[in-house]
Amino acid sequence: MKLKEIGEFGLIDLIRRKFPAKDKNLVLGIGDDAAIIKITPKRYLIFTTDALREGVHFDLSYYSYQEVGWKAMAANLSDVAAMGGIPTFGLISLGLPKNEKTEDVLKIYKGMNDLAKRYRCKLCGGDIFLSSEIIISITLLGETKPKFLVKRSRAKPGDLICVTGDLGQSQAGLEILKAKKPSKPGWLRKHLKPVPRINQARELVQTLNVTSMIDISDGFGSDLYHIAEESQVGALVFAGKIPISKSLLKMAKVLGKSPLDLALSSGEEYELLFTIKKGQEKKLKLLRRKAPDLKISVVGEIKNEKDGMKILDLKGNLKNLRRAGYSHF
Amino acid sequence: MKLKEIGEFGLIDLIRRKFPAKDKNLVLGIGDDAAIIKITPKRYLIFTTDALREGVHFDLSYYSYQEVGWKAMAANLSDVAAMGGIPTFGLISLGLPKNEKTEDVLKIYKGMNDLAKRYRCKLCGGDIFLSSEIIISITLLGETKPKFLVKRSRAKPGDLICVTGDLGQSQAGLEILKAKKPSKPGWLRKHLKPVPRINQARELVQTLNVTSMIDISDGFGSDLYHIAEESQVGALVFAGKIPISKSLLKMAKVLGKSPLDLALSSGEEYELLFTIKKGQEKKLKLLRRKAPDLKISVVGEIKNEKDGMKILDLKGNLKNLRRAGYSHF
Repeated sequence: MKLKEIGEFGLIDLIRRKFPAKDKNLVLGIGDDAAIIKITPKRYLIFTTDALREGVHFDLSYYSYQEVGWKAMAANLSDVAAMGGIPTFGLISLGLPKNEKTEDVLKIYKGMNDLAKRYRCKLCGGDIFLSSEIIISITLLGETKPKFLVKRSRAKPGDLICVTGDLGQSQAGLEILKAKKPSKPGWLRKHLKPVPRINQARELVQTLNVTSMIDISDGFGSDLYHIAEESQVGALVFAGKIPISKSLLKMAKVLGKSPLDLALSSGEEYELLFTIKKGQEKKLKLLRRKAPDLKISVVGEIKNEKDGMKILDLKGNLKNLRRAGYSHF
Repeated sequence: MKLKEIGEFGLIDLIRRKFPAKDKNLVLGIGDDAAIIKITPKRYLIFTTDALREGVHFDLSYYSYQEVGWKAMAANLSDVAAMGGIPTFGLISLGLPKNEKTEDVLKIYKGMNDLAKRYRCKLCGGDIFLSSEIIISITLLGETKPKFLVKRSRAKPGDLICVTGDLGQSQAGLEILKAKKPSKPGWLRKHLKPVPRINQARELVQTLNVTSMIDISDGFGSDLYHIAEESQVGALVFAGKIPISKSLLKMAKVLGKSPLDLALSSGEEYELLFTIKKGQEKKLKLLRRKAPDLKISVVGEIKNEKDGMKILDLKGNLKNLRRAGYSHF
């Protein structure tokens, strides 16, 4: 079977079944945002990798070199955030074409380093190889305490489904760039220079009873399916609760698209999608006061697996939630 | 400046100077086979990455998919060996063309997993992305105790230069494959299915006073320069002491090349090149008895930096040691 038939996630599933990794210190292997390794009973190591490739993940006709580096680092830091952890060290594997300019490679590195520095994450080595396109493969280490670790697999029926920030602007920004439509200040920031939710994730896991978490890298629809599959549950999403910014409304108009469709399918958002136990209204209020820039929206509820993945649309009709989002192959 | 002018090592040097990584727990950053991170005063984490790309590092016209996976893993395990460590966990980032067959990808994975398993190293996750050629980027974690850690930078004048095994067969094997020359059983093993010197490195660091170590991935000449530069020393190599197998003599004849030239320039050997304090003849003897399959050759002596990098050739003439070996760009 060809990869384009089995797809990215089908292949990952197959690898996971054929080559299960078992170790007394391996708390979590394939199937989450990162692997988790016990280094002492009170310290867990987070170990994650994510690659960006020119032509697939970015296009240098509208990305600066520095933004490319920044974005590659954001994608990796976001995976550490999704585990409830703090990033510590990183290795950079760079595939580079022969005719690339040294200054441009240093700009990529600066973009990565600028963002990593914000979280005191240190880039401490890597590898460079000849490639026909630019490839940036980053591996990060992070740490968390066992009590703050959040997996994808612990959502239970009755839990509330929440997201941070607003959704949709990454995809809308990309489409505006691709179609060379007129843009306004701030519209493209989410796509070109996303900020991972490291600090917000820490606030969440330290304050709330978070039962599962993932970062929105494939798209809300797709990533909620990931949580549902790992947790063996279903979900009901309220379309009217999906957080949509005023900018997105305007961007959607420019594009002639539905803002909700953009919000549900937009990948590379690097917002957090998570579930919490019910009855934490007080804690949520406290958190909103403590971290006023941390926007949390309750967008749905976890259901039994047999109830499937549903969305109550803006007209009050119950529909199947589309598994929208990006997949390689 | 273009990358082909500054070269792979020039670029790494530049990144190291422009983006120095400092952290109280970072024992060793850019400039060695791996980064070293202190996790407790008695435990050091080894963190290393190495990528192989189709068309640069391997050619599927004479490599099986399984061998490609094996070799990518060998290259990474060898970096852990060079630090005196034990590999523990790995992440795999795979760049794959759309038309690749799923079975072939699983063969690559099997090759990696088969070799990793030998050392109880567990593959616990990774990333998959669309690429025009196959790219295998592996990141490994390992552990060592501070007292067994060996850097590239501690060689001192008077130390003996040693290598494990025999040299030259990887390059000779590659040239035989490329030229489609007739081959004999065992001739190609070193190139297609190299075995990293994990166990041997442990024996060495536990028995001898090893002052510096590197794995031969670029070529003996090139890698001795790496040690010399990091240690700020010179070296004198005795050509007559370079370990050359009977097979290499025959392979060199088939190729019409000098066996010594092959041995000095052959990359991807994954043998260990290391230096030890003088006066350890007894310990060396003991080690040879304890580990009879561990071949160690003393091939030269560390000199002062101002003496440069020299080789006493087979005719007794002192020449400059060629910085032979592979460089990207």
